[in-house]
Amino acid sequence: MKFVKNDQAAVFALGGLGEIGKNTYGVQFQDEIILIDAGIKFPEDELLGIDYVIPDYTYLVQNQEKIKGLIVTHGHEDHIGGIPYLLREINVPIYAGKLAIGLIRNKLEEHGLLRNAKLNTIQEDDVIKFRKTSVSFYRTTHSIPDSYGVVVKTPPGNIVHTGDFKFDFTPIGEPANLAKMAEIGKEGVLCLLSDSTNSEIPGFTMSEKVVEGNINDIFGRVDGRLIFATFASNIYRLQQVVGAAVKHNRKIAVFGRSMESAIKLGQELGYIQAPKDTFIEANQINRLPANEVTILCTGSQGEPMAALSRIANGTHRQIQIIPGDTVVFSSSPIPGNTISVSRTINKLYRAGADVIHGKLSDIHTSGHGSQEEQKLMLRLMNPKYFMPIHGEYRMLKEHTKLGELCGVPLDNTFVMDNGDVLALGKDNATVAGKIPSGSIYVDGSGIGDIGNIVLRDRRILSEEGLVIVVVSINMKEFKVAAGPDIISRGFVYMRESEDLINEAQKLVASHLNKVMERKTTQWSEIKNEIIDTIAPFLYEKTKRRPMILPIIMEI
Amino acid sequence: MKFVKNDQAAVFALGGLGEIGKNTYGVQFQDEIILIDAGIKFPEDELLGIDYVIPDYTYLVQNQEKIKGLIVTHGHEDHIGGIPYLLREINVPIYAGKLAIGLIRNKLEEHGLLRNAKLNTIQEDDVIKFRKTSVSFYRTTHSIPDSYGVVVKTPPGNIVHTGDFKFDFTPIGEPANLAKMAEIGKEGVLCLLSDSTNSEIPGFTMSEKVVEGNINDIFGRVDGRLIFATFASNIYRLQQVVGAAVKHNRKIAVFGRSMESAIKLGQELGYIQAPKDTFIEANQINRLPANEVTILCTGSQGEPMAALSRIANGTHRQIQIIPGDTVVFSSSPIPGNTISVSRTINKLYRAGADVIHGKLSDIHTSGHGSQEEQKLMLRLMNPKYFMPIHGEYRMLKEHTKLGELCGVPLDNTFVMDNGDVLALGKDNATVAGKIPSGSIYVDGSGIGDIGNIVLRDRRILSEEGLVIVVVSINMKEFKVAAGPDIISRGFVYMRESEDLINEAQKLVASHLNKVMERKTTQWSEIKNEIIDTIAPFLYEKTKRRPMILPIIMEI
Repeated sequence: MKFVKNDQAAVFALGGLGEIGKNTYGVQFQDEIILIDAGIKFPEDELLGIDYVIPDYTYLVQNQEKIKGLIVTHGHEDHIGGIPYLLREINVPIYAGKLAIGLIRNKLEEHGLLRNAKLNTIQEDDVIKFRKTSVSFYRTTHSIPDSYGVVVKTPPGNIVHTGDFKFDFTPIGEPANLAKMAEIGKEGVLCLLSDSTNSEIPGFTMSEKVVEGNINDIFGRVDGRLIFATFASNIYRLQQVVGAAVKHNRKIAVFGRSMESAIKLGQELGYIQAPKDTFIEANQINRLPANEVTILCTGSQGEPMAALSRIANGTHRQIQIIPGDTVVFSSSPIPGNTISVSRTINKLYRAGADVIHGKLSDIHTSGHGSQEEQKLMLRLMNPKYFMPIHGEYRMLKEHTKLGELCGVPLDNTFVMDNGDVLALGKDNATVAGKIPSGSIYVDGSGIGDIGNIVLRDRRILSEEGLVIVVVSINMKEFKVAAGPDIISRGFVYMRESEDLINEAQKLVASHLNKVMERKTTQWSEIKNEIIDTIAPFLYEKTKRRPMILPIIMEI
Repeated sequence: MKFVKNDQAAVFALGGLGEIGKNTYGVQFQDEIILIDAGIKFPEDELLGIDYVIPDYTYLVQNQEKIKGLIVTHGHEDHIGGIPYLLREINVPIYAGKLAIGLIRNKLEEHGLLRNAKLNTIQEDDVIKFRKTSVSFYRTTHSIPDSYGVVVKTPPGNIVHTGDFKFDFTPIGEPANLAKMAEIGKEGVLCLLSDSTNSEIPGFTMSEKVVEGNINDIFGRVDGRLIFATFASNIYRLQQVVGAAVKHNRKIAVFGRSMESAIKLGQELGYIQAPKDTFIEANQINRLPANEVTILCTGSQGEPMAALSRIANGTHRQIQIIPGDTVVFSSSPIPGNTISVSRTINKLYRAGADVIHGKLSDIHTSGHGSQEEQKLMLRLMNPKYFMPIHGEYRMLKEHTKLGELCGVPLDNTFVMDNGDVLALGKDNATVAGKIPSGSIYVDGSGIGDIGNIVLRDRRILSEEGLVIVVVSINMKEFKVAAGPDIISRGFVYMRESEDLINEAQKLVASHLNKVMERKTTQWSEIKNEIIDTIAPFLYEKTKRRPMILPIIMEI
């Protein structure tokens, strides 16, 4: 990084700025790079068929000998999902809390990468010392246990990365370590990288205690079976449900692969505690009275293949909705999932269940702090420079206003893009340059083999369909040997549009004869003539512009 | 309708039950049918490439001689958008308020259907008398002027359809006619069909007066240009903006085709009033100081081609964002548009504008009444039977609970599906039968020519792409004459995947030779063999399942 001076630390992101997801940050001092998190992003609808999005790791690969370690703040997919893809490129030691290590271990096992991985479980008071830099931690509250903020000590000053956080004064699990945060602030923070997710939401995020009370109320009130859907990774919520079930004398059957493995891991690590006979198998459900049954399942986002969606569709192998069932959505829909969640709710109502969902029932709360909590973090850390992270541009921008209110002038605040490098001296900070950054698409087993051309084709195909014109040409005699045949997919239903297709075929045939008379041997010319003949005809008849694919076979 | 007795009235919907949109209701007594509204629905994402959804009009076509008229409650697309498609099938007289007639007229003109249309403008006190039934109206409040509820008098009793409504005691424009509603209720309502859109929202919908105050505050506070985006059909909102602009000495430039025509129509009909020189042309904007400019435009839902999106993208021919610009979103995103709205907001911030949006700024309010307003309607009408309309199943269901609280027993309440027919006698009501109903897809100029097969193909193409295997076969000699060639679209980027494609080609070629040796003449058999050869190979290599399209040309 020649644009960063020798006495400056560099801070950059490969993901997580101007977007939600694929959080991947780096702090570099001279020849030491500390990575913080390696997440994936779930693609928006327009990335047709893409499974995940990961950052471009080029800079890390080129500088792999400098990378001292990957620090993981917590175990959510948008912070750990990229690890298998990163480890395929560079095998860097990983440091994370107990639960995150458990989740990473499972993930690496699935990808067949566990054997060579260097996994280190950290405790809050651990300090990881490198030659010029060191890393320490402070406990935060988030919607998953073992969440940490990270302090990277560098010669010009301390750089603090909050991870995802909220301040819940009555949390499930251990409270955030306010004292340690205050000490870090007192020692001096050169630059704060702070979570911007809820910067547009005023006030304080509702406590988990309120959620717990409401979950208990539901368990006390409902007589039939309770079907409870939430994020599998929200181990605290799972513990709340387990606690309420035990208290109200209900057994729990668990459905959905990620939910089963979360319950297993949560019990192994001691986050989920329940008497031995609390959990039952699917086949035991029908032996119990309805008011002794809890079904804990995946699908709170309306994911089509998840347990709850299959229950709602009536296609679940083991669970059918029966009168008296109450389904609880303990989650809020991620934008983009609103419609599929709504569809699931409608189907559950139709199947005869009662459904408890939505903001009004207070059975879910965010894992991220609202404006007052972001201000509290700013006041505790009292940073010289401030870089809002984790969020769309609008959220980062809003966060800068909170910073200003809490004493960080806008001149000392940096709203950056992925790839921008912030050079930090003792008394100076500038966006000094740029490193390669971008999005790599993962589709099936392919990493980065789908680009904009393929996506553009998928988009046209999805909206207008495809018309193939295939013709065999005898290039010696300049004669059509067979065809032209017209085949379509996703355009019109061919059996009912025979006339249209026949007419198009005649049009192309007569035009091809003229082209043959010109004795052209340029395939591309023939292809263009086919497109220019058929496209306007089809548009006039249907007002649609399908992809036209001329195929010429030379005999 | 043989399942309805001679002394019973029938009520049915062809659209609008269990869904938002394509509202189309019917009341029939013996040989007289009164239609209420004829809307379209905007398709959800999974209906790839579909432009609109309309109801199946089969029952209406089969009974067209019975149809006395189409009553239109108000001029929104989900209540009038189907009219051109309906009129192509049956030319029924249309009755609607002044503004709705204006909007219908524009629409029919575009479709070339105006000349033969029978349009009748109604006033609140009009009564339309048919032989056995009659229709009267009462003024309601909604987010568009000239909104009416409809009373259909039939021998067994009065059937009331609320249209879309809210009770705003301090509305823009004329208040709802509470006195007339009370009279209708006192006279006796056999069945109430009431708007369920906001049945999940407690309390009272915020008044337009509050919105007006906040809009005026913004106009008083902002020094730069104001760019104001809202629904073109919300004529009241447009009047609020025009009023605030005039008061604060700003001129208004209007962008977007639907906005321009709404402003024109609103002025013609007297809903929008402004001094003559209030509206300016695009080329006059730059001659005025920033604090004298208002830009009123479409695009509040992030629609990609709308004026605001082009401004945000920097591709608008006349407007570029300049520092000091403030953009106001006076709307809330429809589910499904959340992401595109958010993207537009991010781009506007990046371009340097300040953006005012969201629930917190109270610059938008719903056009539909919340729970307390729905209860007020139930109390005013005091119906014997109750049929919640306009809404997803969950909303209809929630509305039944409000009905029960207001004295309509659940036994007298009917949550129906499109096509269900409610047979209503003086003292009895049953869902007696079903008429054809369903969704017809409009794509380009095609109505109903896109079915599930085409949509399924579009879905596969959009997510996995297409692989074409084309081969010319000499069927006399059982020999491959040319090919097999492999072409793909939306699958992998072919230039970078040459090895994969070459390997697949060899695989198919060698298998085809074996098939030829068997001297089969069954094309379908050859096609299946090609699919069975290449599909597992591609899945193994890429973990993708593209559509495989074998094309055989006979020489």
